[in-house]
Amino acid sequence: MSDTDRELRVSKIRNGTVIDHLAAGQALNVLALLGIDGSGGESVSVGMNVPSDKLAKKDIVKVEDRELSQSEVDVLAVISPEATINIVREYEVIEKERIDRPESVAGVLACPNRNCITNDEEPVETHFVVLDDGLQCEYCGEIVREDEVATHLDVS
Amino acid sequence: MSDTDRELRVSKIRNGTVIDHLAAGQALNVLALLGIDGSGGESVSVGMNVPSDKLAKKDIVKVEDRELSQSEVDVLAVISPEATINIVREYEVIEKERIDRPESVAGVLACPNRNCITNDEEPVETHFVVLDDGLQCEYCGEIVREDEVATHLDVS
Repeated sequence: MSDTDRELRVSKIRNGTVIDHLAAGQALNVLALLGIDGSGGESVSVGMNVPSDKLAKKDIVKVEDRELSQSEVDVLAVISPEATINIVREYEVIEKERIDRPESVAGVLACPNRNCITNDEEPVETHFVVLDDGLQCEYCGEIVREDEVATHLDVS
Repeated sequence: MSDTDRELRVSKIRNGTVIDHLAAGQALNVLALLGIDGSGGESVSVGMNVPSDKLAKKDIVKVEDRELSQSEVDVLAVISPEATINIVREYEVIEKERIDRPESVAGVLACPNRNCITNDEEPVETHFVVLDDGLQCEYCGEIVREDEVATHLDVS
């Protein structure tokens, strides 16, 4: 067996999205971001704390037949700025998406302030301004610290 | 690329445990059972809804440098009776563990009845008798349905 085979990794997918160079430990948060828990039948491969040249250790998520929305990419850029997104068709990478730290994030996240208008029954989408180390709700000013983002994913 | 390479799978591990033939959709529940969320630095590979000969689709979890306790195996046998456990040393399977549906499960699960003595501050380990389609607390008689087991994992 070659050294490459011996590396802990997940194999190629036919069509879908490869989210690579995730900060180690973020894979399950990314699955939550994508609303994937396995019950929907999506074919998904996940590597957690995989040895990496670029990072000491990384996570990787490969999802068949799925692409990310802009809002999902925006949140990904906040929780794991080093991540790369590759779109795969017939086993080949046809597109590499840059992920840039966004200026704001619409939807995807819920505001932790229960009294925020976005938590009323009103059909108001959340909007957060991206700060250096977190996100601020545009409606009520509540701050979500960067390391808390994953716990405020709006998976409903 | 061979057909084998094209299959969605996770590659070999050097030392650790391979939990294979998991019921599709159970991989994240198994990670919760093992107390793994990625933050502990464990190298883990996960395949969800992978094509399988034995089952239509299956999940698979490979954990480096980790074996399962008997209580963990017992709960696994309840949430995914078809699962197989392989212990790996230097890339070779050195032991295949049978998993039998246990008669009872000690620890690992929390009783959903808040008034159960096991939820007091007392140092009382939970004990559940395994029924045909669920588990029954030996202390208070509360039933945990089989499809609810994963939500009552005691990860504290």
